[in-house]
Amino acid sequence: MTTQQLAQQIQIKKSFLCIGLDVDLNKIPNYLLETEDPIFEFNKAIIDATHDLCVSYKPNTAFYEAYGIKGWQSLEKTINYINEKHPDIFTIADAKRGDIGNTSSMYAKAFFEDLNFDSVTVAPYMGKDSVEPFLAFENKHTIMLALTSNEGAFDFQTQFVDGIELYKTVLTTSKTWKNSENLMYVVGATKAEFFTDIRKIVPDSFLLVPGVGAQGGSLSEVCKYGMNKNVGLLINSSRGIIYSSNGTDFAEKAREEALKLQKEMELILNK
Amino acid sequence: MTTQQLAQQIQIKKSFLCIGLDVDLNKIPNYLLETEDPIFEFNKAIIDATHDLCVSYKPNTAFYEAYGIKGWQSLEKTINYINEKHPDIFTIADAKRGDIGNTSSMYAKAFFEDLNFDSVTVAPYMGKDSVEPFLAFENKHTIMLALTSNEGAFDFQTQFVDGIELYKTVLTTSKTWKNSENLMYVVGATKAEFFTDIRKIVPDSFLLVPGVGAQGGSLSEVCKYGMNKNVGLLINSSRGIIYSSNGTDFAEKAREEALKLQKEMELILNK
Repeated sequence: MTTQQLAQQIQIKKSFLCIGLDVDLNKIPNYLLETEDPIFEFNKAIIDATHDLCVSYKPNTAFYEAYGIKGWQSLEKTINYINEKHPDIFTIADAKRGDIGNTSSMYAKAFFEDLNFDSVTVAPYMGKDSVEPFLAFENKHTIMLALTSNEGAFDFQTQFVDGIELYKTVLTTSKTWKNSENLMYVVGATKAEFFTDIRKIVPDSFLLVPGVGAQGGSLSEVCKYGMNKNVGLLINSSRGIIYSSNGTDFAEKAREEALKLQKEMELILNK
Repeated sequence: MTTQQLAQQIQIKKSFLCIGLDVDLNKIPNYLLETEDPIFEFNKAIIDATHDLCVSYKPNTAFYEAYGIKGWQSLEKTINYINEKHPDIFTIADAKRGDIGNTSSMYAKAFFEDLNFDSVTVAPYMGKDSVEPFLAFENKHTIMLALTSNEGAFDFQTQFVDGIELYKTVLTTSKTWKNSENLMYVVGATKAEFFTDIRKIVPDSFLLVPGVGAQGGSLSEVCKYGMNKNVGLLINSSRGIIYSSNGTDFAEKAREEALKLQKEMELILNK
């Protein structure tokens, strides 16, 4: 999917919502545990109930790897289901990978070719040659960590490197990399006041914004400082949507929560 | 495995070699491709031929994920084979993970519990709460990227943060984290001259050192500046050992290459 197509979907659906599919077997309805693939059954129900309200799904790979081969099978079935049923959805493998060049190429192959995700999240610590192998894929997107939503973001990301915060150096430097037009960035919603400065460095890029909901970030604040002419934001909510109920009505309740966010987004888009 | 047990193994085997199991189907002997699980068959032959010469094996997860479920099965069979046949071997999942707390817990579960690795590599960019969930596991080890072996290391890791290089800030800061005694660090062999300063910050920690071999690092230089009283080094070689031949003699040739390194290490240990 191209960024233009993503921007179009946002206008069509009046939504820039991304739903995080972070499925924990301890949190899903008990009766699903009796099915052959509880994680997939859970995802399928969530997708069926919410696909018209969001433009993106983001499975976090950790939650699948924790269940070994069975988990990887659930991930594969989930991405295949989305790609078949809803090819207009922008898919994100939230994997936070990054390694030396030949290894990053293998990760890119895993997520872009084998699983056919539209995008993957990567970590910047190892620099240019750890990210460029991902950028080499046409119409695939590499979403690099810039400023994350957690407390630990203040350990290194906001430290000053020659008078400039590290996350800003990361943003500025990454723009010089080959195929940098395929970059998007992770910027946490818990740090809304930072968006003004970030938009000075990457005015046109899409930003994936976790931290609305369970982590306490504000949608309106993020939009106020972070939106650009193409919207340029994907607001992620995971736990706040998918675990609204752990009864038989879990998908219905998830839809209600997604709808609340979509309605807020529609209001913002209509302004 | 405890660090004391690892240090003992180094003395018993006169080796601090780690063999990287980065299996690329394009590089292994053709005839193996006809077997049911070529990656596992390759690893099994390498392990059978080299286990007395090394103290550690390090599968890089990218090379398994690139083959989807089949790849994950090969990884599981490989770690199970090592744990059953050679419980004295220190196993490293080279995964370079790291995410917000609840997600890092899932990764820790995946590698420490589900797959039963002794250790996993992690990236530091997201800070304390992204690493501490790994550190919470007793007798498991978290190997954090400090200064990597690739060119991109100079993009951010060696930048000055308040007058101190970022990788040194990462080292110093990480020592304040809970259960930091379970930390080891990745320091690339291609930067041997940096080891003196690194040892001032983490004199007692084990360092996992990639970059000897294919990437051009020097074993004697690394030992000169990086060794401590417990040796404190795991020198990794991947491609330089496992792809010495792509004929039927690949395991034998891998042994020859591993033996060369082990003999060099024995000389250094006897000094």
